[in-house]
Amino acid sequence: MKEYVTEIISVGTELLLGHVTNTDARDVSEMLSKIGINVLYHTVVGDNPARIENCVKIARDRADIIITTGGLGPTCDDITKEILAKTFGLELVRNEKEHEGLYDYIRIGRKFTDNNFSQAMLPEGCTVFHNNCGTAPGCAFEKDGKIVLMLPGPPKECRAMLRDSALPYLRKLSGTQIVSHTVNVFGIGESTVDDMFAEEMNAMANPSMAPYAKECDCFVKLTAKAESHEAAEEMLLPLVEKVKARIGEYAYGVDVENLEERVLELLKEKPMSFATAESCTGGQIAKRFTELPGASAFFKGGMVTYTNEAKAKLLGIDPELIEREGAVSPAVAKEMAERCRKILDTDIAVSVTGLAGPDGDGVNPVGTVFVAMAIEGATWVRHLKLGEHRSRSYVRQMSGNHAYDMIRRYLTGLDIMMK
Amino acid sequence: MKEYVTEIISVGTELLLGHVTNTDARDVSEMLSKIGINVLYHTVVGDNPARIENCVKIARDRADIIITTGGLGPTCDDITKEILAKTFGLELVRNEKEHEGLYDYIRIGRKFTDNNFSQAMLPEGCTVFHNNCGTAPGCAFEKDGKIVLMLPGPPKECRAMLRDSALPYLRKLSGTQIVSHTVNVFGIGESTVDDMFAEEMNAMANPSMAPYAKECDCFVKLTAKAESHEAAEEMLLPLVEKVKARIGEYAYGVDVENLEERVLELLKEKPMSFATAESCTGGQIAKRFTELPGASAFFKGGMVTYTNEAKAKLLGIDPELIEREGAVSPAVAKEMAERCRKILDTDIAVSVTGLAGPDGDGVNPVGTVFVAMAIEGATWVRHLKLGEHRSRSYVRQMSGNHAYDMIRRYLTGLDIMMK
Repeated sequence: MKEYVTEIISVGTELLLGHVTNTDARDVSEMLSKIGINVLYHTVVGDNPARIENCVKIARDRADIIITTGGLGPTCDDITKEILAKTFGLELVRNEKEHEGLYDYIRIGRKFTDNNFSQAMLPEGCTVFHNNCGTAPGCAFEKDGKIVLMLPGPPKECRAMLRDSALPYLRKLSGTQIVSHTVNVFGIGESTVDDMFAEEMNAMANPSMAPYAKECDCFVKLTAKAESHEAAEEMLLPLVEKVKARIGEYAYGVDVENLEERVLELLKEKPMSFATAESCTGGQIAKRFTELPGASAFFKGGMVTYTNEAKAKLLGIDPELIEREGAVSPAVAKEMAERCRKILDTDIAVSVTGLAGPDGDGVNPVGTVFVAMAIEGATWVRHLKLGEHRSRSYVRQMSGNHAYDMIRRYLTGLDIMMK
Repeated sequence: MKEYVTEIISVGTELLLGHVTNTDARDVSEMLSKIGINVLYHTVVGDNPARIENCVKIARDRADIIITTGGLGPTCDDITKEILAKTFGLELVRNEKEHEGLYDYIRIGRKFTDNNFSQAMLPEGCTVFHNNCGTAPGCAFEKDGKIVLMLPGPPKECRAMLRDSALPYLRKLSGTQIVSHTVNVFGIGESTVDDMFAEEMNAMANPSMAPYAKECDCFVKLTAKAESHEAAEEMLLPLVEKVKARIGEYAYGVDVENLEERVLELLKEKPMSFATAESCTGGQIAKRFTELPGASAFFKGGMVTYTNEAKAKLLGIDPELIEREGAVSPAVAKEMAERCRKILDTDIAVSVTGLAGPDGDGVNPVGTVFVAMAIEGATWVRHLKLGEHRSRSYVRQMSGNHAYDMIRRYLTGLDIMMK
């Protein structure tokens, strides 16, 4: 089977000015790797004809497939099609169907200028990718042994066209199926995981494995290439089990995005309800869970008791307790979780109180956080020392991870206090 | 003054697999544009010696400054320094100070292998950039009329080294000062702003202006180049005022990141307190505000009343009202805001109830949201129809923006209900 070398060229001065991040290149790369097409280069270039042409020529020399993102819109900066067509010796011709389609936008009251109609000008003989989320169509053509695809720049349009048109087009070219699974890990770092598997990883080619760090957790990616999806899955299955077993209690899930997603899976199995009482995380734990569709069946509600006054008013915590123990203390974390659980009448409640920085409380260093979980008849409190050099967002994110890890451990029968 | 053409080369297979987004290239571009250095190309290449060398040679031909990110760490994949040194005909030599420094990590208990010490090998005669957030130093050298800088890949390390070492190094090269200001806009779109200023924008070169869209708001960026920072500021000042005046009530701030940051500025001026009662936003409004250092002086707390039960238990909302009007209704939004304000005894309270999707409630379409703001003696409710094709995260983000916009309008004496 042929290995196609692919280059992504993203066109847009806003990328070079740092106004936006090149998420299109990431999205295209991610989806292509899933169908067994290797991306070997990303290039970003501004809205400048000569420089775009130069980049296209370099890509033509080193890649089999060129995928452009951006520069298909109606403004005079949008010149990707012109340059690609010119470089490959093609004319732009009006696509009647896309041209007609543009009138629909005028009918619904959008203002259109002549420029807008330039969007219907496409390279002769190309396959047209209709844009279901915007006005600028994309396209694909083959010329001189090279395959060129053009996708729009707005991330939502790019992703939709990739999924609906570009991947089906490319899938026909690729004989390999690549399948990946991730084993998600919390509580030990990427380097520890690396040490655990160093020997195997060096000896493995297909399937392969590699650990990756995220900000507050990490994952091991296992990948197999085979002639069919099923064959690749078969190669991976024993490996996934082996990795899970060796990582043990720190392996929190397979193919999940984060701890809260895993907790949602586990809550669906039980089912159980939970609630949150947050101080320094300021609503982040509730926000993360409610990002998941289906959250409302398990998450009843939460309180953001950011001030001592709110801790008293919403949770009924005795101001004397706060006075005596400090707002950032195991006693207050415990009270918050227990009272939250009773007030909202849930199976589980988690609470967080701590110092996310930049200011401390004069007693505990920044990065001190107490995370508690209460169930009927029992409460646990983890004492985190996250370090004074950590950012506010890191402290908040890590605190939330610990809260979800406690729920996960409870729901899977593991020791709730991490070693 | 010389215009340096700059190329950023980011090294890392994880970027080509789409596991991570190339935020380093964005960060470097953004900071460079602020000191008047033009980035004309980004390249991403994997951990492959021949391909890295090829990309470096292309960059050497078309750029004056090459900045690499990534590939400076201790693993065998980290080969950026070797390739750059080789391409420019330099030897790697051991930097004694950095080598010594690595022992400090061992002393605090980190496990180190021989590989770790390769981090102290740097191109002969280079300027060393010490890494204050990690172990791998960066560096800069000049050779054959080209300037090369190497920065580490982890975003936090890259940003810190850029700020502490790379920018001071580059600032000496650039004679131009570029100053930018943004006018932040909520309530009208980028294209409307574009129409407002189309004529001026075409006629302007320095200072220049351009509108940019973000997911749920937009901004106008005004940029001036001059010999000194002061001269550039002087060119911009009248332009900022003119743009603000023409955009009027929709211009919510200058040089702020988002609406909540502007609200924090305004609350500091008054000062006033506020609280939140959130249903479909699930804690996101509280979370956003508490991301800002200093939030605790104004934000007392909030309730995440994700279920009807929580609306009754935490806010005391009559279940009959919910039964009669529906949980997603102006009446419930109003009650939520008013009761929240009373319970937490704040000057202002905002509430949100709506349908973020994917499921509807059988009455209102997905994207229906009611956002309320209560002050003593008055409550306002905005009815949003955000559209059924919008993502859950868009609906939540936009709802939060409306809540902050209502507070902003109240604090600046504008009409709270948007036209």
